[in-house]
Amino acid sequence: MEKIKIGIVGYGNLGKGVHIALSQNEDMELIAVFTRREPENVKTLFPAKVDKIDNIQNYIGKIDVMVLCGGSATDLPSQTPFIAKYFNTVDSFDTHNNIPTYFKEVEKSAKENGNLSIISVGWDPGLFSIARALFSSVLPKGETYTFWGKGVSQGHSDAIRRIKGVKNAIQYTIPINEALDRVRNLENPVLCTAEKHLRECFVVAEENADLEKIEKEIVSMPNYFADYKTIVHFISEEELKLNHNKMPHGGLVLRSGESDNDNKFLLEFSIKLESNPEFTSSVLIAFTRALFRMKKEGVIGCKTVLDVPIGYLSKQTSEELRKELV
Amino acid sequence: MEKIKIGIVGYGNLGKGVHIALSQNEDMELIAVFTRREPENVKTLFPAKVDKIDNIQNYIGKIDVMVLCGGSATDLPSQTPFIAKYFNTVDSFDTHNNIPTYFKEVEKSAKENGNLSIISVGWDPGLFSIARALFSSVLPKGETYTFWGKGVSQGHSDAIRRIKGVKNAIQYTIPINEALDRVRNLENPVLCTAEKHLRECFVVAEENADLEKIEKEIVSMPNYFADYKTIVHFISEEELKLNHNKMPHGGLVLRSGESDNDNKFLLEFSIKLESNPEFTSSVLIAFTRALFRMKKEGVIGCKTVLDVPIGYLSKQTSEELRKELV
Repeated sequence: MEKIKIGIVGYGNLGKGVHIALSQNEDMELIAVFTRREPENVKTLFPAKVDKIDNIQNYIGKIDVMVLCGGSATDLPSQTPFIAKYFNTVDSFDTHNNIPTYFKEVEKSAKENGNLSIISVGWDPGLFSIARALFSSVLPKGETYTFWGKGVSQGHSDAIRRIKGVKNAIQYTIPINEALDRVRNLENPVLCTAEKHLRECFVVAEENADLEKIEKEIVSMPNYFADYKTIVHFISEEELKLNHNKMPHGGLVLRSGESDNDNKFLLEFSIKLESNPEFTSSVLIAFTRALFRMKKEGVIGCKTVLDVPIGYLSKQTSEELRKELV
Repeated sequence: MEKIKIGIVGYGNLGKGVHIALSQNEDMELIAVFTRREPENVKTLFPAKVDKIDNIQNYIGKIDVMVLCGGSATDLPSQTPFIAKYFNTVDSFDTHNNIPTYFKEVEKSAKENGNLSIISVGWDPGLFSIARALFSSVLPKGETYTFWGKGVSQGHSDAIRRIKGVKNAIQYTIPINEALDRVRNLENPVLCTAEKHLRECFVVAEENADLEKIEKEIVSMPNYFADYKTIVHFISEEELKLNHNKMPHGGLVLRSGESDNDNKFLLEFSIKLESNPEFTSSVLIAFTRALFRMKKEGVIGCKTVLDVPIGYLSKQTSEELRKELV
């Protein structure tokens, strides 16, 4: 079997996750990791060629799909339209509001050069987008709810760390059970994000810091915490390292709907992840496979997870899927 | 907007469900209901043209998609290959073991005549097939579990009704919570169908019937009950009519998996339906829309839910979906 040749662009948590995921996907092989750092300074988890991102054009024709593992704030908006000129790409761009703009730029670049890009792959956007679209299509009359957590929010953790007197911190976003129960009871409640989630913070303070002041600053921080029920715990650095060293996450998409004959329906999709980046990477790899198949059929331009037939994600053939799994 | 013109073939619970679902899908219009009965004997829920199924060829060119609402045992295997010669079709064929054979026959008929058929649409097969394929693709190392219920099994209810001394009966298939908990606790247990489900029966006995004998016959019935934990309640005809007059169903697909870095993941999709046929109908209608779009793009032959991009199910355009939902 001819393997799908991939490149990993960016070797942070997500890039490492893709590298780990490859061992469970034996139909793919890693050609090279690309980095902005000095290649000799990048220690890969398993032996792999590392090259400078500036040399990426040397790999034209040698790599089927570039898996872009940069961040959505600054990396991807500049990298993807450029790389999509020369390669098929898959990425996890997750700034929901900017997807239409990002899509247009990637679409132009990929289409003009006969390449295919799939953007915003992961779990939200990604699997949750699939759930939202599927659920609202089969139940046109109804309400959709997305809950995030329990999981670490990097942005909120960073915001706490910027407070004077804080040495380290981690913040968990947690769905509020009462809100979840109301949805499951088919009450169709109107709920804003703050009514669906609470925020739990574990903070390591510097010696002699004013704990009361830190707590006040956290709970009153606009946008991040002020509108939410927020719980603050002060813990030691040791406890933080021991009990909060993973990047778990999770969440739920629910839709309650009804027929015009007054029968009610509830659809629910939920995920629990011990490692957020490793799961996102695993989703990226499945969509890399789908991309490879769609490209072979002549599809070019920019696509999202909603444009991909689910069967294309599987290692199995259509015939095997019909026999064993449909 | 040009509406999608549909025909309903068969007007039992499923056909009626499709008729009900149309009011929530204003991009479609019903041209005719087709029946094997005398058309004047078919009372439709809303005003609609009813014609004999033998006249179906008079509608060539006037109907975009035939929604086939017959049963999987005898109706669909003979009807679909014939109708697929003249029309695009969508159906809910649900005999899992026979899907490969059924697929081949429908594929031949549709392809030779330039039509498109989507088979085995509903929730299992259907949405559950999508969940199984999606979950196993993003978590290659893991176990998939399907649980059915709580819901009415028509086949098991019928089996009880055939017992001497039984006037009426209904059987609910119910997931066993302990088994479900073991899956959710990531124990990756090996579970056969009987270890995942119990069977609860509500039986109306004829006057002076031997209740003990009936119960014994139920719980020892091979294939249907003998391998299962089975609970039998005797109730009055009134109670049956009052409390057991709906066709609810539901179920779950779970996958527990892990990365090669020892991080664990749990994906779960569940549904709760007050009316099994009305929900299946609603899924059929969404795939009717997708079929219409795929056919316009030139796709012909036989497809399953795994060949359909999820975005095609939605009333919204790709652009709207990217903006509002991805």
